[in-house]
Amino acid sequence: MRKLAIIGIGQTPVGEHWDQSIREIAGEAVFAAMNDARRETVDGIFIGNMLSGTLVRQEQLGSLISDWVGLKSVEAFKVEAACGSGAAALRLAIMAVGSGEMGCAIAMGVEKMTETKGVETTAALATAADADYEAFQGLSFVAINALIMKRYLHEFGWKHTDFAPFSMNAHANAIHNPFARLQEAITEQDYQRARMIASPINLLDASPIGDGAAALVIVPADQIPALTHPAVLISGSAAATDTLAVHDRKDLVSLAAARKSALIAYAQAGVSPQDIDFFELHDAFSIMSALSLEACGFAERGHGPRLGLEGEIRPDGRIPIATRGGLKARGHPVGATGIYQIVEACQQLRGEAGGTQIEDARIGMAQNIGGSGATIITHILTIH
Amino acid sequence: MRKLAIIGIGQTPVGEHWDQSIREIAGEAVFAAMNDARRETVDGIFIGNMLSGTLVRQEQLGSLISDWVGLKSVEAFKVEAACGSGAAALRLAIMAVGSGEMGCAIAMGVEKMTETKGVETTAALATAADADYEAFQGLSFVAINALIMKRYLHEFGWKHTDFAPFSMNAHANAIHNPFARLQEAITEQDYQRARMIASPINLLDASPIGDGAAALVIVPADQIPALTHPAVLISGSAAATDTLAVHDRKDLVSLAAARKSALIAYAQAGVSPQDIDFFELHDAFSIMSALSLEACGFAERGHGPRLGLEGEIRPDGRIPIATRGGLKARGHPVGATGIYQIVEACQQLRGEAGGTQIEDARIGMAQNIGGSGATIITHILTIH
Repeated sequence: MRKLAIIGIGQTPVGEHWDQSIREIAGEAVFAAMNDARRETVDGIFIGNMLSGTLVRQEQLGSLISDWVGLKSVEAFKVEAACGSGAAALRLAIMAVGSGEMGCAIAMGVEKMTETKGVETTAALATAADADYEAFQGLSFVAINALIMKRYLHEFGWKHTDFAPFSMNAHANAIHNPFARLQEAITEQDYQRARMIASPINLLDASPIGDGAAALVIVPADQIPALTHPAVLISGSAAATDTLAVHDRKDLVSLAAARKSALIAYAQAGVSPQDIDFFELHDAFSIMSALSLEACGFAERGHGPRLGLEGEIRPDGRIPIATRGGLKARGHPVGATGIYQIVEACQQLRGEAGGTQIEDARIGMAQNIGGSGATIITHILTIH
Repeated sequence: MRKLAIIGIGQTPVGEHWDQSIREIAGEAVFAAMNDARRETVDGIFIGNMLSGTLVRQEQLGSLISDWVGLKSVEAFKVEAACGSGAAALRLAIMAVGSGEMGCAIAMGVEKMTETKGVETTAALATAADADYEAFQGLSFVAINALIMKRYLHEFGWKHTDFAPFSMNAHANAIHNPFARLQEAITEQDYQRARMIASPINLLDASPIGDGAAALVIVPADQIPALTHPAVLISGSAAATDTLAVHDRKDLVSLAAARKSALIAYAQAGVSPQDIDFFELHDAFSIMSALSLEACGFAERGHGPRLGLEGEIRPDGRIPIATRGGLKARGHPVGATGIYQIVEACQQLRGEAGGTQIEDARIGMAQNIGGSGATIITHILTIH
């Protein structure tokens, strides 16, 4: 397949956007990305979104958003893979431009989640799990992750406190990201005293939801226009699935689809974990940080928390993660998160990451997870 | 882009499948298509679906279905474009195989709609319209189509009865389709006396919803395996959008996105309307049959009903439509409909259409509509 590049990025702050409808939030990100790419038109739009049908009673976002941003009549679809919807939209844009069906495409994600009551949002998020065998039994999304974390603590002998560095790093980095929802530091004591949600997961293990949108402009790498910033090459892109219900997995504490998609992406990019300068992983819960680092070859099985305890995940460490706040502190507008990760990786590669800029960042990785590991999409980006 | 072919087709009957969950319905169609194609594995699955999140509280169908059919770990996503979701899934499969990202893909659609109360289904279907400006005002999906039909009758002077041939033809054809929901003929008197739903649309103008799934297996045309049936070539494939809210359109009684996508597909296939042997159009309501025929060049503006009155839409007419029952009588499991249309077009081209076989069918067209014309996807298929 031909090589592709990201020439424009855009995002809205993650927060509670009471004054904006879903189309307005989406439009803000699309306009920012098109301005950044200096494009006035594109051939199509792929929209990652999980919950618009249930939470804002609006489907067919393709037509809604393309019309709203003045791109009426272009091809546009919504794609859904739970919290992995954002990177799924990027996968489709890659196929669209890679196949020649489109010369230029927008991959974006948008979610509006804060207008509904918490119990409705929790129920809607549970549709990411197996409805017949998990959600129907009353198992919420956080409860599934709690089962996984409990098993992990039991199997490898870590204490809950050992996960504190994941959350502390994310919050420390978010202070330097004006688009982050929680721009405030937390201490180890804050982490230890946080309110319990579903044992052993407490409030500071969990990422906050939010409203937000992020967008990318994709073109073939041989058609990069003159820009005031470097273009970012998509060197690896792969998706894999696992069983939806976690009870069907042979191993509860490893992410098979993360491993598979990362191995394909490494091979495509011709790199190995040692070459990766930073890793925007899917820290919806702190346990997912450990599992992602292990599945992608940055830590041995059961050793993920060690990277946090040794400071290796910080911007000056061996494998910086959540460099702009991650899901934990930038926030998790579920269908948009996968595109936020790519926007942030582009900021690092373009040297625009401000106070958390990784020195000499040349190769970045982003990984977006749908459900509790059921759909996992890995991208490797390099600077042009 | 490289030429692609459909080597396998599968479908379930459209009906009320109380004994099957959504994964079981989907699996039945996938297994049928894979058996037909003599394939035991594929590289990915694209799933058209509109309402699983709201009606069966299940998202992330990609992981759910790929695991259920024994294709665990393959890339799989759900795509949504309201009632156009099915053909949207085919568009994505075309991009995936066309780009070389996949060597073989399944495009499928599935919907389970009959387990919920009618009022819930109506509310869920209204998410295809503009939530802020249409659904919020109480305008249901059928009500929007009623406004369009009313305007059409006013503008061009047709009587409601003039639309009877669309419904009568669909029902007559469905008698020969064992997968159709309504395998029964209707008379003109039945049509005239049918219960009013939203004036001027009565029960026999409207298609019935249903549970069902349909699936296709797609490969590059230069990799068609030995089969006991001919392969079907995808000669044209295009999608276009229009404003979601109908009040934003300059012309309420024409389908701009149908015209645009059909013109692109004609150009790709190197054909004109005169070359099309049959047309599986999106007859969710009888007014849509007239508008589709006009937009695609089979009738002048305002003349669509004439084709019905003159018998030209029947299997032995100039442009047969709804040859296996159409949405009106085969049924309309919304996210699956676009794939049912393609399955039926393949049956015609393969000579497997039984009692409604079009003589010497070589070039077929299918058109799938999301919302009231907001997303429209056109495919032209030819025999290998």
